[in-house]
Amino acid sequence: MPDFAEPLDRLINEFKRLPGIGQKGAQRLAFHVLRSSRDDAEHLSQAILDVKDKLGLCSVCNNISDSDLCRFCRDPHRDPKVVCVVEEPPNIIGIETTRQFEGRYHVLHGALSPLRGIGPDSLKIKNLVERIGQGEIEEIIVATNPTVEGEATAVYLARLLKPLGVTVTRIGMGVPVGSDLEFADEVTMSKAIEGRRQM
Amino acid sequence: MPDFAEPLDRLINEFKRLPGIGQKGAQRLAFHVLRSSRDDAEHLSQAILDVKDKLGLCSVCNNISDSDLCRFCRDPHRDPKVVCVVEEPPNIIGIETTRQFEGRYHVLHGALSPLRGIGPDSLKIKNLVERIGQGEIEEIIVATNPTVEGEATAVYLARLLKPLGVTVTRIGMGVPVGSDLEFADEVTMSKAIEGRRQM
Repeated sequence: MPDFAEPLDRLINEFKRLPGIGQKGAQRLAFHVLRSSRDDAEHLSQAILDVKDKLGLCSVCNNISDSDLCRFCRDPHRDPKVVCVVEEPPNIIGIETTRQFEGRYHVLHGALSPLRGIGPDSLKIKNLVERIGQGEIEEIIVATNPTVEGEATAVYLARLLKPLGVTVTRIGMGVPVGSDLEFADEVTMSKAIEGRRQM
Repeated sequence: MPDFAEPLDRLINEFKRLPGIGQKGAQRLAFHVLRSSRDDAEHLSQAILDVKDKLGLCSVCNNISDSDLCRFCRDPHRDPKVVCVVEEPPNIIGIETTRQFEGRYHVLHGALSPLRGIGPDSLKIKNLVERIGQGEIEEIIVATNPTVEGEATAVYLARLLKPLGVTVTRIGMGVPVGSDLEFADEVTMSKAIEGRRQM
């Protein structure tokens, strides 16, 4: 027998399917919706559908976009000569918050992972090669994750793209700013020593 | 300038309005919806609207219900002579999980709180008095929260309902089972001593 009336139970179950939300959290959210206004519930409900219906991928860089070109590819102030390659669309935000990068992006939608059967053909690499073929790009910054998969993808891209005449760089790895060396793992520490700079 | 395409930004903002969900959590949920199937998104979206459109309050006990009578008031196996009074509908679940209570419920939808301007008229007390007036109820178990407001409400109800000829009881208060006495606060401890039982 369900604990609540059917529509409430159904909403709790739907919320529970979302990542990081358990039974108690789902109940809390469902009761919040129940107490909120009809308008608020409608806005949330519509926003969920719009994300599925109104978004696609940018035809140039594969970022999520509501039009053919994403806002980075549309922006004439961004340098088309430097392209930062990331695994997933949310990674772009992390780079944007630094306000340091003024170039364009390319989203691979994944990283190489032979164990999970993700090879080069599963990633959006083909249209990166095409972009480079147009001759405007001078540097590719590979900003895949500092994981085994991300590293493998970076090495693969470097080998593939260097012969096309572009500079391929990798983001710096080392100890995070503000952290305590005591807690740095050995791989991070060895990357930090490898990447040392003259002062 | 928004970080993401408009529909995605809008969904992130909608999720952020829910309790306990911050920027990172909202992004995670929104990207989950973006990656899930159109069907899954539609089910979630519809469940949100249905909770607003298909639910009302039980005409007898004020519990949330999708029909005139909630499932507890409809159930002929539940004892109509004992009524458990709770502050909010989710409190019923806590009592149901004990599988000990076989009576009916009454939901006040709040507790007395003079500081926040919540007096007896703001609570659903009137139809509890009417229920008692029908003569079938013998015992009222007051299961409001063990807080200042819940206690005040319990005392108020006891004074109001006893003259109507019903027994009014309050749920037991004391140290929670499985806890360590070391961490029991002084008010709980004094309630535990007050509520001691012969062995």
